[in-house]
Amino acid sequence: MWRELAPVGRHPDSGGYRRYAWSAADLECRAWFRAQAEARGLTYETDRNGNQWAWLGDPLAGNAVVTGSHLDSVPDGGAFDGPLGVVSSFAALDELRSRGVAFTRPLAVTNFGDEEGARFGLACVGSRLAAGQLTVADAHRLKDADGIALPAAMKSAGYDPDTIGPDPERLARIGAFVELHVEQGRALDLTGDPVGIASAIWPHGRWRFDFRGEANHAGTTRLVDRRDPMLTYAETVLAARREAELTGALATFGKIAVEPNGVNAIPSLVRGWLDSRAADQATLDAVVTGIERAAREYADRAGIDLDVVRESFTPVVEFEHALRDELAKILEGSGDTGRPVPVLGTGAGHDAGILSASVPTAMLFVRNPTGISHSPAEHAAEDDCVAGVRALADVLEGLACS
Amino acid sequence: MWRELAPVGRHPDSGGYRRYAWSAADLECRAWFRAQAEARGLTYETDRNGNQWAWLGDPLAGNAVVTGSHLDSVPDGGAFDGPLGVVSSFAALDELRSRGVAFTRPLAVTNFGDEEGARFGLACVGSRLAAGQLTVADAHRLKDADGIALPAAMKSAGYDPDTIGPDPERLARIGAFVELHVEQGRALDLTGDPVGIASAIWPHGRWRFDFRGEANHAGTTRLVDRRDPMLTYAETVLAARREAELTGALATFGKIAVEPNGVNAIPSLVRGWLDSRAADQATLDAVVTGIERAAREYADRAGIDLDVVRESFTPVVEFEHALRDELAKILEGSGDTGRPVPVLGTGAGHDAGILSASVPTAMLFVRNPTGISHSPAEHAAEDDCVAGVRALADVLEGLACS
Repeated sequence: MWRELAPVGRHPDSGGYRRYAWSAADLECRAWFRAQAEARGLTYETDRNGNQWAWLGDPLAGNAVVTGSHLDSVPDGGAFDGPLGVVSSFAALDELRSRGVAFTRPLAVTNFGDEEGARFGLACVGSRLAAGQLTVADAHRLKDADGIALPAAMKSAGYDPDTIGPDPERLARIGAFVELHVEQGRALDLTGDPVGIASAIWPHGRWRFDFRGEANHAGTTRLVDRRDPMLTYAETVLAARREAELTGALATFGKIAVEPNGVNAIPSLVRGWLDSRAADQATLDAVVTGIERAAREYADRAGIDLDVVRESFTPVVEFEHALRDELAKILEGSGDTGRPVPVLGTGAGHDAGILSASVPTAMLFVRNPTGISHSPAEHAAEDDCVAGVRALADVLEGLACS
Repeated sequence: MWRELAPVGRHPDSGGYRRYAWSAADLECRAWFRAQAEARGLTYETDRNGNQWAWLGDPLAGNAVVTGSHLDSVPDGGAFDGPLGVVSSFAALDELRSRGVAFTRPLAVTNFGDEEGARFGLACVGSRLAAGQLTVADAHRLKDADGIALPAAMKSAGYDPDTIGPDPERLARIGAFVELHVEQGRALDLTGDPVGIASAIWPHGRWRFDFRGEANHAGTTRLVDRRDPMLTYAETVLAARREAELTGALATFGKIAVEPNGVNAIPSLVRGWLDSRAADQATLDAVVTGIERAAREYADRAGIDLDVVRESFTPVVEFEHALRDELAKILEGSGDTGRPVPVLGTGAGHDAGILSASVPTAMLFVRNPTGISHSPAEHAAEDDCVAGVRALADVLEGLACS
């Protein structure tokens, strides 16, 4: 399966993937998904929000066990984030069939659309729409960097944007959703385990810091006459790191937009986006408050106007304890090591996190030896990927087979 | 004249001008120039490098007195930077005609092409080509942000790119070039004079700092596992300000490019451009060396790879002393205040600086009450603009009339 998927949307210079929602590369990935479904005799369908489904058994029977992930990517993303979950789902199904098990519940593999939000700026659009966590009106307002609105992008990709919206009947037919994902940190590498179970997704959000100063000529304006927002931005970037270290949270300025962004112009506007996450809400509040307070002090001192806007926020997601414990029991019984499978939190958002509000949901992580994620250097060892497939097959067998 | 020129290339949101070389707005400005020339019965021509000329008297006679500036702009530039010099040139000619003077030397008004370098990244392209300070091969390599090469841009604007190159015969026919420009600092505001004379253009250059770290997931990568180039960039921005303060120079990071520039991605690359200028070469060397040394220390400490590339450099330009002294004498005799006209240096580059290597060259500055430049808020008072026209007329009369 990897062989066909590997070249799709891969940028020749960076070696990273650029599979943005509803782009040509995304459509190739979707065609691959459909072909995989049909090659296995599964019932293929697209739901009203453009998410793909491949069914073994009756989709309408209810109490289904569903597994899958996403195929889109961040800009210059790695090969595993998303696709590992989808590929492993099909491989786990193959494994179950080769084991000759009898299925007692309907089973489906899914590919959720636009998980990374790389194109329209909002993550998990496909699952959010289905779960009613993104309104149709707000979805219509999403635009990409070229000004193309989400409905227009769906339409030009051959999907019907008029049907998007909450899909509670579909979600009600799911008894359990399990998403396998490459780990995006080094916790499993540090414990020495190939596979782990998710406990929770940290609360996380995005804040936009607009630093407004005064555009001026970089070659003629005396230092004392300047109101240069780049300086205040730089101070704030360093404050964010300090606050994160103090509180044990994560805080990152990874995206910036500068106006006029000319070599010989003091900027009028520096817009920086803060991504921050922490194990609990109180810590997240503390770190973001600390960064904003520092930024305001710097801004006041330098005559810079500062606006801080929270652009998105996801509270802590605790995965359902019963399903999580069931997974732990299944994997403990079948594991190679005889010791318990590690249960770990993660700072990354997932479709599983969105769906967990509507459906019993769990996640499996596969070891990432470097922890590198959202980068062409992202990696998982072949043995660990095989262990992931086996674990997922064990879980599906435990949940859906007699 | 201002009335026709004011709306051309003005952006409705910012109120700033976007008159980039060979764009539609630039062509409108050029059409305006030609109409002004023809309305005054001047001989209009375009030289081989796309610079515009309006002649009173025989262009081939030699020992001509030439005055002018440029009509293009930086992104969201002000109304005066460039156009004030061209408008004042035509207005000074009108003034001389109304004075009924007899011209003893040919006189020309010019508009040099692509002074700001906003589109192709190199300033003073028109004058550099004419003076042989930019080779044809290098000019062919210039590309704008959309990948359009300079020759293609000239061609699509209706100009012949095959003729560009050094124009020594044309420059040899110029006896004196005088450029009037709005001041880009507050020196005249501080001395209380409407008009000043340039002594020198500070040495200045652009350096590109490439900070390379490791792209990673902002939500899952432990702080200790990060190689985040944004932090090193931020430290360097602050170091640049400190070094500039210490040495009395100017140092500015006003342009940045980040990869992948995603909210939830630690950057793999932060590319920042340093603009630095100082009154003399030794000071400029000291400030740039200091900034680079600091950046390397920060980079080494954080596991960041740093490349520093000098993208452009212009040594100090001392305007010809004889012409400068002649201007001072003319203006002292005619001035309102009876006191000497201030002589001041500037950190900004100009076509006059380029031409000064080939032609006796001088500059007049008109007071800028706020010093704001390269911004929609750039301003010069009407009285000061009138004083500028009168001073330029006095200078032209002193140089070119009996």
